[in-house]
Amino acid sequence: MPPAEPLGTFTDLYEFTMAQSYLDHGQTGEAVFDLHVRGLPTDRGFLTVCGTQALARRLDRFTFTDEDLAFLEEQGLSGDLIGYLDGFSFEGRVRAMPEGTAVFPYEPIVQIEAPLVMAQLVETLVLNTIHLQTVIASKAARCQLALDQAEASAAMVDFGARRAHGLDAGRAAARAAYVAGFAGTSLVSAAREMQIPCFGTMAHAYVQAFGDEREALASFARSFPDGTTLLIDTFDIQQATEMVIELAEDLADEGVEIGGVRIDSGDLVAEAERARARLDEAGLADVDVFVSGGLDEHEIARILAEGAPVDGFGVGTSMVVSDDAPSLNLSYKLAAYEGEPVMKTSEGKRTLPAAKQVYRRFEDGRMIGDVIARVDEEGNGQPLLEPLTYRDPAKATQVARQRFADQLEALPAEVATLEDPAPYAVERSAGIEDAIEAALERAGQA
Amino acid sequence: MPPAEPLGTFTDLYEFTMAQSYLDHGQTGEAVFDLHVRGLPTDRGFLTVCGTQALARRLDRFTFTDEDLAFLEEQGLSGDLIGYLDGFSFEGRVRAMPEGTAVFPYEPIVQIEAPLVMAQLVETLVLNTIHLQTVIASKAARCQLALDQAEASAAMVDFGARRAHGLDAGRAAARAAYVAGFAGTSLVSAAREMQIPCFGTMAHAYVQAFGDEREALASFARSFPDGTTLLIDTFDIQQATEMVIELAEDLADEGVEIGGVRIDSGDLVAEAERARARLDEAGLADVDVFVSGGLDEHEIARILAEGAPVDGFGVGTSMVVSDDAPSLNLSYKLAAYEGEPVMKTSEGKRTLPAAKQVYRRFEDGRMIGDVIARVDEEGNGQPLLEPLTYRDPAKATQVARQRFADQLEALPAEVATLEDPAPYAVERSAGIEDAIEAALERAGQA
Repeated sequence: MPPAEPLGTFTDLYEFTMAQSYLDHGQTGEAVFDLHVRGLPTDRGFLTVCGTQALARRLDRFTFTDEDLAFLEEQGLSGDLIGYLDGFSFEGRVRAMPEGTAVFPYEPIVQIEAPLVMAQLVETLVLNTIHLQTVIASKAARCQLALDQAEASAAMVDFGARRAHGLDAGRAAARAAYVAGFAGTSLVSAAREMQIPCFGTMAHAYVQAFGDEREALASFARSFPDGTTLLIDTFDIQQATEMVIELAEDLADEGVEIGGVRIDSGDLVAEAERARARLDEAGLADVDVFVSGGLDEHEIARILAEGAPVDGFGVGTSMVVSDDAPSLNLSYKLAAYEGEPVMKTSEGKRTLPAAKQVYRRFEDGRMIGDVIARVDEEGNGQPLLEPLTYRDPAKATQVARQRFADQLEALPAEVATLEDPAPYAVERSAGIEDAIEAALERAGQA
Repeated sequence: MPPAEPLGTFTDLYEFTMAQSYLDHGQTGEAVFDLHVRGLPTDRGFLTVCGTQALARRLDRFTFTDEDLAFLEEQGLSGDLIGYLDGFSFEGRVRAMPEGTAVFPYEPIVQIEAPLVMAQLVETLVLNTIHLQTVIASKAARCQLALDQAEASAAMVDFGARRAHGLDAGRAAARAAYVAGFAGTSLVSAAREMQIPCFGTMAHAYVQAFGDEREALASFARSFPDGTTLLIDTFDIQQATEMVIELAEDLADEGVEIGGVRIDSGDLVAEAERARARLDEAGLADVDVFVSGGLDEHEIARILAEGAPVDGFGVGTSMVVSDDAPSLNLSYKLAAYEGEPVMKTSEGKRTLPAAKQVYRRFEDGRMIGDVIARVDEEGNGQPLLEPLTYRDPAKATQVARQRFADQLEALPAEVATLEDPAPYAVERSAGIEDAIEAALERAGQA
């Protein structure tokens, strides 16, 4: 692998202009910034934190090349700022919720404490990095909810790399989906980096290249004799099902086993039922039925509710772009400066002041409520913000997956549901309420 | 810049399993693959091609490291395939529509001719690369439509890096938006790479850090005395407008000019009108009014329709995630193999067979219809598919921007509209119709 590209310029210009002006005017005190969402998308009861490991890595790459600095100078930025950026390395203190944690509006997902200029400069990178994986993990979590609600044990596989928004997004989607319970991904680079299972067999082009469907299916099975999955909808699904049944018998002598069939179009419930019935009649109960094509959490729920005998789902576009909510109202806001709590009071965009901790209380293993408190207050329950440390990618992914599974188990059923979720109880501590009052007073709005 | 990372494993596993099986069975003839959309999202009359330059670069990076090959071997792939991939370099023939071109369903955006294995392997990378920029350019084009329909000359700036789906999406969004008529971007790395204008001044955090809004605005203006833009909605917009008016007078002696104000919340029409009126009364007609915050094409159209005196729009999230249509039904399908046209006949997912050219006819400078033809047929009109060559990023971006502007001018008004667009006439040539019939016959469906 080549050395990683410096990321200092993955930054909105205004971070640099502000940084320069902070330096100009001696505004170099310690700042605390909060990363939080201001609300939940429709029909979402919670979000799933993801992307903090990527953030840990990327903050170390927040550096500048000489060419970067020359470009910033051309943009009219001052020598003082350029001097500050030359040799920059991020040394702020970062606390974050562990990946896989369920999170609610105004709870800090990440909190960064650093000199104001430093904390300000990383804003764009911090937002972009956490937003991407949190968007996708939160969507993938809904597919897992659909499975759980049907008490189904079918496997879901991420097929979304082709329509994810870029290379980053393709890899992040594979990871975020795995964290949220998917069995693995079709994307080789992601499987390799995270050491997660990689799935994939054949596409329609394979059958088309052979022209003769039977010959194509036989050829593919011979190439992968240990139970591969054959795609049966290039032409006629029922005809192809019969071909698979014949092949299973004909190729058995050669030691070729067929592991499954995949249906990627048509009425997936009806086709899965028909294929299952024919396979069972033919004594091929061990051959699995996979479906794919335009699936999202609602389709998965519907397919399972209709009792379709599906062993696996390939889930792509809808999940990786989070089509019902492709963005979150994620913000990175100044919460304290030089030890003083501060807040934004503009219409509809208020923030919560002060450096914070979030405490989560449980009863009989169920989450019963969170409290957003000042970091210097006493709190009851499990503190959610922890120092962010970079871990081995494979291990970190497994830890996050376990955390997600635990949280899903602990979330109140009425919150962890696909439609009309009940709000989860999040309170503000007395210390936060006092800080709000003080901040509004200073802003002349109390 | 460090050397670019090899991209051979940004590939779904099934491309490799198919490749292996093609090699096993001697399916190594010449193939033609088509990249096209199967339909348009709701209320979209056309899409804008973008991303082919990135594709040209990335195909050269479709290579494998020794570690990649070792991982693929662990996935059970054969020595034959690994040998094929070792030292792989993409040598297919790529034709593509120029970036900025308006495109319609089933028209090939990209067509790749290569030995089957080679053409198959690059599928995931090709789809991902074209999908991203085409999604965003097509959305950004709608913002430009909103401006054109209002005959407004306001500038639009991409503010979306923070909520784009990843680092490459942030950069791609800046580029795609610029191609589609935006004045520039806030994202430094994109501005630098494409040599496009970079914009940005200040955020709320700046004002909050100072606490005193007047002091904050004065300090920022002093740091950037040549006409910067001041954010006026951290606390109370009307109060901040008065501060700006006072500052313009007070700081004039120091040679400090104020260039504009930005409003990021509240009722943007009412606030822009109020701010404009007060600035004009104060003799500050040259101070521009910028608005931002949750803008999309419909909001821009509404703001302009209501006559708000807005000089510039900061457009972020909605555009960069293309929130109404975050994915396109983009497919990469085998169109011909060993010189024979082939097609997919499965329900709802039919493709058009044969290697193709698209001809676009004009009358009085207006587009009047396209014909999708076989590449070996005679055609009338402007052929849209051209050999893809990699150009300097800055030049290529300018060329694409000009092409987009020309296409927008040439598109029928009833097609290039925000709501209920009329369908644009796209016909199939006699040669394509014949190829369909022949392919259906072979598939037993004629």
